[in-house]
Amino acid sequence: MQILVIGIGAGDPEQLTLQAVAALNRVDVFFVLDKGDVKQELVDLRTEILQRHATGYQVVVGRDPERDRSTTAYVEAVDDWRRRRADVCAELIAANLGADQVGAFLVWGDPSLYDSTLAILDDIQARGELSFEIEVVPGISSVSTLAARHRVPLNQVGRPVQITTGRRLAKEWPDGVDDVVVMLDAQTAFTAHLDQDATIYWGAYLGTPDELLIAGPVREVAAEIEKVRAEARERKGWIMDTYLLRRP
Amino acid sequence: MQILVIGIGAGDPEQLTLQAVAALNRVDVFFVLDKGDVKQELVDLRTEILQRHATGYQVVVGRDPERDRSTTAYVEAVDDWRRRRADVCAELIAANLGADQVGAFLVWGDPSLYDSTLAILDDIQARGELSFEIEVVPGISSVSTLAARHRVPLNQVGRPVQITTGRRLAKEWPDGVDDVVVMLDAQTAFTAHLDQDATIYWGAYLGTPDELLIAGPVREVAAEIEKVRAEARERKGWIMDTYLLRRP
Repeated sequence: MQILVIGIGAGDPEQLTLQAVAALNRVDVFFVLDKGDVKQELVDLRTEILQRHATGYQVVVGRDPERDRSTTAYVEAVDDWRRRRADVCAELIAANLGADQVGAFLVWGDPSLYDSTLAILDDIQARGELSFEIEVVPGISSVSTLAARHRVPLNQVGRPVQITTGRRLAKEWPDGVDDVVVMLDAQTAFTAHLDQDATIYWGAYLGTPDELLIAGPVREVAAEIEKVRAEARERKGWIMDTYLLRRP
Repeated sequence: MQILVIGIGAGDPEQLTLQAVAALNRVDVFFVLDKGDVKQELVDLRTEILQRHATGYQVVVGRDPERDRSTTAYVEAVDDWRRRRADVCAELIAANLGADQVGAFLVWGDPSLYDSTLAILDDIQARGELSFEIEVVPGISSVSTLAARHRVPLNQVGRPVQITTGRRLAKEWPDGVDDVVVMLDAQTAFTAHLDQDATIYWGAYLGTPDELLIAGPVREVAAEIEKVRAEARERKGWIMDTYLLRRP
């Protein structure tokens, strides 16, 4: 049994690597967790990728358990969620994947950044009931796409760059770095740093036809980003955005 | 005039994206800076990529100026080097690229991480003598490849990750982060942190047939990495490596 974790890029099907295309072709069963509130556009995009590049495959859909968003114990809530997702995935794999078959999970962006698939598979392996090999195919992350679309590097010469969450940036600008990339920001945390002499490079729906890009001094463009973001979210029903904050 | 900056992945030609393949096909002139001490394997790999995916193109090679490595003023030395590289590139472009043509620079990994091509092109544009559009095609970085090969995420749940240089890590473990990725490490800076309860995920020549991977508690495997690294460097004449240090 083999499970592939395949990065499929930030939203543009042309961001698939040749390696990912070859991997898609080897897969017998694709596993999908469905929250019920799935963004239809993302489902369509994934379907398009499979139809273009995979052959002779089966798609098995499991019910994604709810995450407890009422608690302030973020890490514990995520850990618990991950365990319950692992329960669902273990059942899906046991029921649908033959010993000589290849299964796969598709991951938006790159499986190495803020994605739980690898942790879920580790959790399943640790239980010892299912035995499978894991192979990871890296993908183009939304972070790389953001930098490419704004035509900027993520780092300044010889300087570090930190990738973090909106939750953390809302509390404070991280120590020791002038370049901060934020993923998973539900709260426009950049608005907490309008006192900084920083430039923001913001992007939403990166790589898709709906892509939005705004760049400028954060204190000058923050209000515009908030407005554009709120309107887009309202119009489409969801938003995925990321940004780089850069201090000189 | 258009200049494409194309990320071609960490060393495995299969890491090219479909977008990069399409971009390669649009290029009339590829610009290459040659230091003289070029790693023949990397030149061969690049040639293989062009032969497989590009058509009707020209390759123009310029002499890469020397960087002043005697000075301790790192940023100034890099700035000066970049200006002189911009001089060379501006001449190459002016002499070889027609107004309706598409030129390109290929970048190992992803153009957004520790690569000077975008800064060089900005420098040329700022001089105002040459006018061209820039398009960036993101690539799979050695950082993404490292994580994929070790089958680990770069971040822990809800936690930040910092990408930095060996030079900086040698001085101190960065504040506020437990996950540190190091690129550009000529000095095995992880050996400065053997007192840490950290795991290291190390890789060299990632994505190539010579790939080397070592993982484990840093204080237990540091000596092995140093030995394997020194031997590989001696055998091949060069090394490119990267690693993740993770504290629980």
